[in-house]
Amino acid sequence: MKNFDINEDPHRRFNPLINEWVLVSPHRAKRPWQGQNEVISAETLPKHDPNCYLCPGNVRANGVNNPAYKNSFVFDNDFAALKQDEIIFEEDIKHTFFKAEPEQGISRVVCFSPRHDLTLPEMEVSDIENIVKTWQKEYAELGSIKYINHVQIFENKGSVMGCSNPHPHGQIWAQSSLPTQVEKTHNSLKSYYEKNKRTLLEDYVQAELKVGTRIVIENDHFVALVPFWAIWPYETMIVSKRAISKITDFTAEEVTAYSKILRQLTIKYDNLFSTSFPYSSGIHQAPTDGMDHPEWHFHMHFYPPLLRSATVKKFMVGYEMMGESQRDITPEKSAEIIRQQSDIHYKNEVN
Amino acid sequence: MKNFDINEDPHRRFNPLINEWVLVSPHRAKRPWQGQNEVISAETLPKHDPNCYLCPGNVRANGVNNPAYKNSFVFDNDFAALKQDEIIFEEDIKHTFFKAEPEQGISRVVCFSPRHDLTLPEMEVSDIENIVKTWQKEYAELGSIKYINHVQIFENKGSVMGCSNPHPHGQIWAQSSLPTQVEKTHNSLKSYYEKNKRTLLEDYVQAELKVGTRIVIENDHFVALVPFWAIWPYETMIVSKRAISKITDFTAEEVTAYSKILRQLTIKYDNLFSTSFPYSSGIHQAPTDGMDHPEWHFHMHFYPPLLRSATVKKFMVGYEMMGESQRDITPEKSAEIIRQQSDIHYKNEVN
Ligand SMILES: O=P(O)(O)O[C@H]1O[C@H](CO)[C@@H](O)[C@H](O)[C@H]1O
Ligand SMILES: O=P(O)(O)O[C@H]1O[C@H](CO)[C@@H](O)[C@H](O)[C@H]1O
Repeated sequence: MKNFDINEDPHRRFNPLINEWVLVSPHRAKRPWQGQNEVISAETLPKHDPNCYLCPGNVRANGVNNPAYKNSFVFDNDFAALKQDEIIFEEDIKHTFFKAEPEQGISRVVCFSPRHDLTLPEMEVSDIENIVKTWQKEYAELGSIKYINHVQIFENKGSVMGCSNPHPHGQIWAQSSLPTQVEKTHNSLKSYYEKNKRTLLEDYVQAELKVGTRIVIENDHFVALVPFWAIWPYETMIVSKRAISKITDFTAEEVTAYSKILRQLTIKYDNLFSTSFPYSSGIHQAPTDGMDHPEWHFHMHFYPPLLRSATVKKFMVGYEMMGESQRDITPEKSAEIIRQQSDIHYKNEVN
Repeated sequence: MKNFDINEDPHRRFNPLINEWVLVSPHRAKRPWQGQNEVISAETLPKHDPNCYLCPGNVRANGVNNPAYKNSFVFDNDFAALKQDEIIFEEDIKHTFFKAEPEQGISRVVCFSPRHDLTLPEMEVSDIENIVKTWQKEYAELGSIKYINHVQIFENKGSVMGCSNPHPHGQIWAQSSLPTQVEKTHNSLKSYYEKNKRTLLEDYVQAELKVGTRIVIENDHFVALVPFWAIWPYETMIVSKRAISKITDFTAEEVTAYSKILRQLTIKYDNLFSTSFPYSSGIHQAPTDGMDHPEWHFHMHFYPPLLRSATVKKFMVGYEMMGESQRDITPEKSAEIIRQQSDIHYKNEVN
């Protein structure tokens, strides 16, 4: 019999954003790895690739040429998962087990830069501000379409995250329903707000700032931290300090502060294993259903797969799929490791 | 405006086992793939590998030698995610955001065969019966431990599923809490049973047998099907026809029928892309909390990652992580493709 030590003993932690648990096994971090190694492409990318369908001037799958764009560039996905067609549908209520509904939406691609080789951490703050302004414009534009109730902005970075083109880009899937994960968060934020008249994340950020151990970066308007309930080894979340429900409510100062923390976080990520750090990131913010959403609080998730090195990732497989998410390294340890990384990108390090 | 066609139009389907939706984009199945390809090991495995820590007689990480086992062999995981230590814990109720609880449990490894090279689809039915009997024994034994309320039996097959040793084996993680995914299913099964006095899966299997399009294999006691709400391209579920709450309730005939369907399904899987088909599989069955669970209905999930070939997998990334699971090929089409595969393993095909 011994007293519970959260840094040593297997335990579960609770995620109040989605009401789910994660299993943490701190003692297991030292297990040897004999499994699959990821392949890292060592090739240096050109500034412009004539074969890239995202580079300025090149031709896309649908035969259209990209403009000679100078900042970011947005177009409708040529292989969209969602379609704008209006579909006539009569629900068949006899179907207890075969419940299906048509879903209307728009999928877009957002090129971050005309440069084929320039990822977020290698851009200037002003370049990133341009991307943030593009996200604001898209959120406002797509959100104003009558049947669009949710706008999901996200990025898959790196081939290990299913990204099929290294040209820096993200995506936007806008649709009529609240997607499953967003609905969970929506319900949690709503019930917290109704009870406390403050947003859940407003109070959470304050609590984290008080403790300090999971904070990675803090500036005047944003915090980047490893959530207490993080599932991926180096998962982080960027949260606004102020209760802002959506990206279009940012002040000019907040746009800059957000761009800065995005840059600083992704630089630290790249420095961690001296590699272009793969992840999926995504912004969670208020639904675009035309209602007020004081319960919503802007945040951005980063789910990076790497565990021990540029080639060894964490596998969310058998137990994780059937049971629940599981991690070895503690969020506190991860936060410390990311925080300690230099703010100068390893490629620009003068030694 | 057109009428909803589930085979053509983007739609969402509802999973009543966990109360979550999946986005289906049938029209997107033909999009070209320029992303990451998995590496397949072409090497032929030896029957016994002197460097394998799972082969009979060899030494494990903890210095102990494996016995010269003849059928399946079970041992406690040398790098267990769970530990048996009893931990003293006083909950700190002030922690709204930092909720954690120690978790007690046991992790075991189940070697399926002394043969280093023999996967499930290449075994005889009698060999598989031995594995099923081992699962029964472990479920009963671990389940009878006072603090163990859930026994998760699972297999990670293939390096793409994080499996670090090709010697055919599965794992068992037994613990005091119901893991997140199991708890969701538990709640759904319970409320269905309370309302209908039949298990949800008893009625679902009958409904599927009536429709037929998603059935892959049927024998006297079990059905293998692609669930209406499947998220992975070739996901399947093996369900007992009778409402059996746990593996230890199988009759001798059911043990054989289950072994047969396991063999037949994994043979079809291997034949699909003429490769040792990777997947994570896992059994969901009644908790071992000492209570009766008439609402529980034995089923086994197969989550295989491959999409188009032995090297191109489906990535559950950005949208899927932030929004909801998404698939291109319809479950009906997948079922048809798996069903059409030969019942003779491609390695034994005489041509
Ligand atoms: O226990 P193993 O086989 O070493 O590890 C594998 O299965 C575990 C249970 O699904 C996962 O947590 C690991 O990420 C995976 O690599
Ligand atoms: O749209 P892309 O980049 O071709 O595809 C990538 O992102 C999508 C959205 O997360 C996923 O559904 C795909 O599996 C992934 O390969």
